[in-house]
Amino acid sequence: MSVPSSVSNNLPALTLHLAQQGLAAPDLGSAMMPVLDALVGNTSAVGAAYFQLRAPEQTYYPRATCGDLGPEPLRRALQHGGLPATLPIVQALQGHPDVLFFEDTRLMPEAAAFAELAIFGLCAAPVYDRQGQLVGALLAHTFEPYAWTGAERTLIRSVTSLLGLLAARLDAEERERDAHESALRALGLCLEARDAETQGHTDRVTALAVQVARRLGLDETELRALRWGAYLHDIGKIGIPDAVLRHPGQLSTDMWTLMRGHVQGGLQLATQLPFLPQTALDVIALHHERWDGGGYPHGKRGEDIPLAARIFAVCDVYDALINVRPYKRAWTHQEALTHIQAHRGTHFDPRIVDVLGEVLASAETAGEPAQAVLA
Amino acid sequence: MSVPSSVSNNLPALTLHLAQQGLAAPDLGSAMMPVLDALVGNTSAVGAAYFQLRAPEQTYYPRATCGDLGPEPLRRALQHGGLPATLPIVQALQGHPDVLFFEDTRLMPEAAAFAELAIFGLCAAPVYDRQGQLVGALLAHTFEPYAWTGAERTLIRSVTSLLGLLAARLDAEERERDAHESALRALGLCLEARDAETQGHTDRVTALAVQVARRLGLDETELRALRWGAYLHDIGKIGIPDAVLRHPGQLSTDMWTLMRGHVQGGLQLATQLPFLPQTALDVIALHHERWDGGGYPHGKRGEDIPLAARIFAVCDVYDALINVRPYKRAWTHQEALTHIQAHRGTHFDPRIVDVLGEVLASAETAGEPAQAVLA
Repeated sequence: MSVPSSVSNNLPALTLHLAQQGLAAPDLGSAMMPVLDALVGNTSAVGAAYFQLRAPEQTYYPRATCGDLGPEPLRRALQHGGLPATLPIVQALQGHPDVLFFEDTRLMPEAAAFAELAIFGLCAAPVYDRQGQLVGALLAHTFEPYAWTGAERTLIRSVTSLLGLLAARLDAEERERDAHESALRALGLCLEARDAETQGHTDRVTALAVQVARRLGLDETELRALRWGAYLHDIGKIGIPDAVLRHPGQLSTDMWTLMRGHVQGGLQLATQLPFLPQTALDVIALHHERWDGGGYPHGKRGEDIPLAARIFAVCDVYDALINVRPYKRAWTHQEALTHIQAHRGTHFDPRIVDVLGEVLASAETAGEPAQAVLA
Repeated sequence: MSVPSSVSNNLPALTLHLAQQGLAAPDLGSAMMPVLDALVGNTSAVGAAYFQLRAPEQTYYPRATCGDLGPEPLRRALQHGGLPATLPIVQALQGHPDVLFFEDTRLMPEAAAFAELAIFGLCAAPVYDRQGQLVGALLAHTFEPYAWTGAERTLIRSVTSLLGLLAARLDAEERERDAHESALRALGLCLEARDAETQGHTDRVTALAVQVARRLGLDETELRALRWGAYLHDIGKIGIPDAVLRHPGQLSTDMWTLMRGHVQGGLQLATQLPFLPQTALDVIALHHERWDGGGYPHGKRGEDIPLAARIFAVCDVYDALINVRPYKRAWTHQEALTHIQAHRGTHFDPRIVDVLGEVLASAETAGEPAQAVLA
């Protein structure tokens, strides 16, 4: 299909429309979808994909795809393997200011890998961040050799230039968000560095709590808040002296009072992070409350305890039970679950105990040890 | 000035051009500048400003201004006071989907405050984030009552609708970045919670190091990396037992070995944050190296020690000297500076010692106590 004259006459309006949709989209993948649709809808390209750099792997993975990507092996290769930075097409895009057009990939060494996938007509647009790093690539293709027309080249250039800028910007937003999340997790892991006994506890309990919460229907925003609260749940222990924190036997009454103070101390530290949502603060402040009102610090009961804190409380105890502590051996998964179930409706919210059982059972029937759900 | 027909005929191209500039701009303020220029250049507005919400104050502060903002009192009021969320014009924008146009602010209660500032013609465009919160407002004005023409209204609506989306997106990016920075600072402050003696040290030493570094010509990217390193410089102390960390007298050889280990331990923790720039890692790993090679852990000397680590080393010792520690009283600023100067070229990089002296002196001649530079 060549470019309809109605489109080529009104390229700025089309580009503007795509930019508007992209700016309003919740994430990079959804922002690029209308662009791919426009490429496939208004040019001879039969399929298109947007690839974005994941820096640790130095590989560009698809974030949005559209149209016909060819037979299953190709699709799978793209989805799982992505485009490594060493691939000739990526090397060719590096530093190249403009869209690359290939009429026949068999004739061009930099596109040769695509000929093997039966992709013969190809255009590839680079996306740079503000430091000049190649952070993304927008590809569109045909399954026959194809001479891209002047009108198609103009359309592809117009659309990809603005949307490339947008993609770079959304990429920056995502990287900040990821870094932000890493920093919060590091804050939690820091504590573990002090207390060799709880190594891995933060990540395990966070993963488990998120699974339970997802099954209970919490949305992504709430899951994120729960995750942040989970990272930071014991942050108040930073203020507990070693003599108490690492005490091997029963704690004295005074020690116990100090130890319980970690939830208030943690809340005090957490409120210095003005961006923490209430749900995260709830997890930090209320994860030692009990369903029957016998917990601390407030003795809240039942649904007066926010849901995220109730979820976290169950998972926190479960993970403590299945791991060794100064005062106990590591229990088996079954022993731990039996213990939790015995306190269903007293210590723990009954509904959450049931969901924990389901999460652990589904991991087991999937042939994984229950521990695998925590990986 | 009414809208030139060349502009009104090609609104999508103008809007696209502004979006392109905005997406490539380094920050929200610079992204909005061309928009304000376009409003003042292509309509009868004589001045325009973009205001952005600072959530803690519930106030919208100007991030970019253009043209004639009126006499000095008005400009000052705008710059310093901003637009409080309680202001009638802000209330009128809240939830309003479209641009508000006022021919004569004296006749409209929601714009009355502007009449007092001799602004009579006004248009105000709301900027919402994806959660529907009013995060910004784009204002343009005349100093006479003015009936906005249909063409002007079309131009202003077209430009502000896309740029509003862009502003919301850049605002999200900034908020993620700020939150990210807060999380790193919290990581540092957490340590202080454990060690009452060093309360405030992280913030003071960070502020001082940034001032010294700025005077030495480091750019904003390097300053940010230095700041992050400064927040985290003693993060390795998390692994030091209380018995050593809080030991009141001289440390034994074994204790000293443990204590010195905090720089290696800190580096190990910091490398779990993949986004930390090398400069931040340098500060954490090398802030106990000495100019003459007598420091630890590597005994690096002179310019083999990265600049940021050399800057931080001077500021860290200075702040330790002027504050009380378990083993010493708080020294005066002059005593501390004299001590640092006595170790110019042995412990410390001579150039940095000189710059520290300048920073402290300039704070004093400004009539502030030297401490004020650290606020």
